[in-house]
Amino acid sequence: MVVQDRLTITTSGRGTIPVTDIVQVRVRESGVHTGLCHLFLHHTSASLVLCENADPDVRMDLDRFMARLVPDGDALFEHTAEGPDDMPAHIRSIMSGADLTLPVADGACDLGTWQGVYLWEHRTSGHRRRMTITIYGERR
Amino acid sequence: MVVQDRLTITTSGRGTIPVTDIVQVRVRESGVHTGLCHLFLHHTSASLVLCENADPDVRMDLDRFMARLVPDGDALFEHTAEGPDDMPAHIRSIMSGADLTLPVADGACDLGTWQGVYLWEHRTSGHRRRMTITIYGERR
Amino acid sequence: MVVQDRLTITTSGRGTIPVTDIVQVRVRESGVHTGLCHLFLHHTSASLVLCENADPDVRMDLDRFMARLVPDGDALFEHTAEGPDDMPAHIRSIMSGADLTLPVADGACDLGTWQGVYLWEHRTSGHRRRMTITIYGERR
Repeated sequence: MVVQDRLTITTSGRGTIPVTDIVQVRVRESGVHTGLCHLFLHHTSASLVLCENADPDVRMDLDRFMARLVPDGDALFEHTAEGPDDMPAHIRSIMSGADLTLPVADGACDLGTWQGVYLWEHRTSGHRRRMTITIYGERR
Repeated sequence: MVVQDRLTITTSGRGTIPVTDIVQVRVRESGVHTGLCHLFLHHTSASLVLCENADPDVRMDLDRFMARLVPDGDALFEHTAEGPDDMPAHIRSIMSGADLTLPVADGACDLGTWQGVYLWEHRTSGHRRRMTITIYGERR
Repeated sequence: MVVQDRLTITTSGRGTIPVTDIVQVRVRESGVHTGLCHLFLHHTSASLVLCENADPDVRMDLDRFMARLVPDGDALFEHTAEGPDDMPAHIRSIMSGADLTLPVADGACDLGTWQGVYLWEHRTSGHRRRMTITIYGERR
């Protein structure tokens, strides 16, 4: 069986937003007991990542590392139509990925103790981000 | 239902090649209405990425950024059997990924307005690249 | 049909461990002829990658490149609770990914000639790493 769902998440600029709980609710509602859960962002300037979920410093460090690795306003970039964070956002999205597949076991996403799922906004201003969740597998 | 297909794409050296249209045709032909489409490259020196599809400068900037981040002929590398772009190609492939999963809805890959699927060749010379498309889900 | 399996891999510190053979055995045992095989690590400081499988120098170069790109003990990092390799391990995991989907054809993972699947440990000390394998598709 396949259950597909769409949702919109509003971001408030660069940084990570936890989406684990939203995803777990959808998986439980789907009725799938064993299978997989696929998450997909319909954008090229944000991404979906698995990150440590206990210390908020981890996600701050992650974002600061990426800001140093892919600097806003880098003279290398020709594509600056939407500002100095435009092209860096596309690169950050490709390096961290906009789709994610998670195992479903016993009717829930089977994440590690310290794993959380995060939507990572790469633009400096807030955006409305569309995500599709596709859950497939077998009922008990 | 599962539909699996193979195809070969010939590249002409480093850079991105749009494959969205090829993939959409295969998804439509598969008859799957709701589900997922998995793309896989059988190589470790090319990758599959979701990138902005409107301004070609984005993909030029992306490639120039990667060329700076993972320089050809870096003295760090021992593995230089196939030339100065050999080891950088492997690293670029791992950082951007050789597999991609996309949602299928209403019988087509449900991409965002600005999302395109690209095969990214990381070697400086052209290659024949094998790709497997696996589409699975439910008919209407 | 869906077959899901769990296993534990013990690492001995930073570096790559081949898991292709373990995965191929599980795929063969599953009885799935055509479909997909999903691998998932339940950790945020290790990853799963497709890498060249012939010359061990490739994986040595890969690890040395990442150690230079994301340096241990970088003054940028606030999150140093578990030592200088703690935060770099989280970043390395996000940049290379903790999940991987492979095509299954003729009852085996259909990898390219030079492709191997590797668990990449990012911590300097050894760890026990949990992995879930989910194989789904059709019998012949």
